[in-house]
Amino acid sequence: MADEKKLVRFGILGCANISIKLCKAISKAPNATLHALGSRSVEKAAAFAAEQGLPTAVRVYGSYEAVLDDEEVDAVYVPLPTALHVTWAVRAAERRKHVLLEKPAAMNAAELDRILEACEAHGVQFMDGTMWVHHPRTAKMKEALSDAQRFGQLKWIHTSLTYNPGPEFLKNSIRVKPDLDGLGALGDTGWYCIRAILWAVDYELPKSVLAFPGAILNEEGVIISCGSSMHWEDGKSATFHCSFLSYVTFDATFLGTKGSIRLNDFVLPFEESLGYGTFLESSELDYGKIEPGMWCPKPNEHVVETEFSQDVCMVKEFADLVIKVKGCETKPEKIWPILSRKTQVVLDAVKESIQRGYQPVEIVS
Amino acid sequence: MADEKKLVRFGILGCANISIKLCKAISKAPNATLHALGSRSVEKAAAFAAEQGLPTAVRVYGSYEAVLDDEEVDAVYVPLPTALHVTWAVRAAERRKHVLLEKPAAMNAAELDRILEACEAHGVQFMDGTMWVHHPRTAKMKEALSDAQRFGQLKWIHTSLTYNPGPEFLKNSIRVKPDLDGLGALGDTGWYCIRAILWAVDYELPKSVLAFPGAILNEEGVIISCGSSMHWEDGKSATFHCSFLSYVTFDATFLGTKGSIRLNDFVLPFEESLGYGTFLESSELDYGKIEPGMWCPKPNEHVVETEFSQDVCMVKEFADLVIKVKGCETKPEKIWPILSRKTQVVLDAVKESIQRGYQPVEIVS
Repeated sequence: MADEKKLVRFGILGCANISIKLCKAISKAPNATLHALGSRSVEKAAAFAAEQGLPTAVRVYGSYEAVLDDEEVDAVYVPLPTALHVTWAVRAAERRKHVLLEKPAAMNAAELDRILEACEAHGVQFMDGTMWVHHPRTAKMKEALSDAQRFGQLKWIHTSLTYNPGPEFLKNSIRVKPDLDGLGALGDTGWYCIRAILWAVDYELPKSVLAFPGAILNEEGVIISCGSSMHWEDGKSATFHCSFLSYVTFDATFLGTKGSIRLNDFVLPFEESLGYGTFLESSELDYGKIEPGMWCPKPNEHVVETEFSQDVCMVKEFADLVIKVKGCETKPEKIWPILSRKTQVVLDAVKESIQRGYQPVEIVS
Repeated sequence: MADEKKLVRFGILGCANISIKLCKAISKAPNATLHALGSRSVEKAAAFAAEQGLPTAVRVYGSYEAVLDDEEVDAVYVPLPTALHVTWAVRAAERRKHVLLEKPAAMNAAELDRILEACEAHGVQFMDGTMWVHHPRTAKMKEALSDAQRFGQLKWIHTSLTYNPGPEFLKNSIRVKPDLDGLGALGDTGWYCIRAILWAVDYELPKSVLAFPGAILNEEGVIISCGSSMHWEDGKSATFHCSFLSYVTFDATFLGTKGSIRLNDFVLPFEESLGYGTFLESSELDYGKIEPGMWCPKPNEHVVETEFSQDVCMVKEFADLVIKVKGCETKPEKIWPILSRKTQVVLDAVKESIQRGYQPVEIVS
């Protein structure tokens, strides 16, 4: 058993599907423990706990408020519909609970600012639930992207995240309801695409974004499929595409002057359950190693092993920060709210570009 | 030896690098023979013939005109800079030479129309030099795209064609000179991207195109890097990126409601010299066949063997049509000029969108 003082006690607000994943991740993370679970009814919370085989020590509550009232809860994971984020994340911060908030972080940057201000004011750690950035593969890709000899200078990025959940989802899912996950596919899948682009450019905001004409919205105005270009002063450009209408793609391509990096599983490695992830890297430096019959060198497959799956990595990293704040060693780490906010700002700009009939939207940092 | 009557006698106008490839392709095609080669000086033509080890029977001329004057030349291959296409393709048609014209077909659709009108008026076959569409792999991909069970309905296409020829090229190459290949990267590489998109949608023109802000032009206004989105009335969308500034990519992704098709070598199969090409195809129908440890099925690699490389396939297909016209069996096949013109129309629209400060450009068929 890990030292009890070093365990962050999590409370989960809501029994969303993603909560199943987080329950497991919290149980696997060496510095975290699941302490409480709240739902809109205690029966629902208890049924979830039973179905997931949660330890009997986990307290089940019939409201989110009750989780926040539990003084032994250090941190909350908030997988509620996006429209509820501002209410519950702010309340959690006010009760001095650290906040791990599912993406998209908020309906817009103004709402996110209220959350971040509350976290700042009450001295709690904030992090959004973008898991892939915590996988060790991501750090290795960043090394490859930063290799001036092999990759050169970054020029172009393209990301795509799509899946086709079918007609029942498109009719009834909270992810297409304006008063729940009102950002639709842009929030659910575009968030990842935008984050990957920003990650590649070291989170320098683009100068402007221009959404692709032909975005598809449902009858209530929620985005079902869209995309956007964006560009930077120094000549870098990027595009992304996100959709609830196509077969699954998790594609990211990073193009440099001398090389490329690409993967088709950027938000979740194909081999996640086997304990590793891969990416493909090509460079003009390999032209001396062309195989017989090929006109260009094959890409190099980089394999990155991981002790923990990316969801556990995220919980562990968040809990490490929480432990330091709890122990008064440090103040909350500011990089995570900054990264969330930048992602949200670009997302807002894409939405605005669509709403304004596909006009360019300048981004003011 | 093939029957002499069934051999199309080619004349080549100019000693461009691509002429080396075509000389070989013509020599390998069972229905074609290289008859003449013209350059701006007879010395240059003779030097090229010697360097390439062309048969001594090949006539070398000190002007393009002389090739057209040669009554034994049935067809010309025109690899001249784009700005010269309209002059020489029209003259060739007027001398009743069939025209295989390197891409981009012309500086704009108006110039291309002059070429196509001349070909029509004089009863000669026209085809542009887009080789990849002639590879048997392309036909197999079309079958996969048309498989409603596995692929579903086409929703999204992304293509990218880039290479980084370096500073000397960017300073001196004819491909960045406004009075020569004045369409720059859009003509040299974007042509392929646009063609692949149109190919996928059965050459239905998009409703409109909108170029990505941040296109990079050289001091003389020639496009060095750009891209565009485009969309169709029925909800299909596409994007492409083309550039002289990044490491080589030949990417195409076709996304359907139920499956995807992708390849990273669409303009030239990696294994071209080994006699085959491949593409990757995924479908939701394969979810029953997930391998242990993976969360989604691996794509299926389709291997398509080819008797002839794609350049030879193109020459052979063109020569077959020429033979039929020569033998008065048929009139020239109209599909090839139509496909060239559609590609040019979209290319023109992308250029116009850039010139108009990234405004949408409606496409009128």
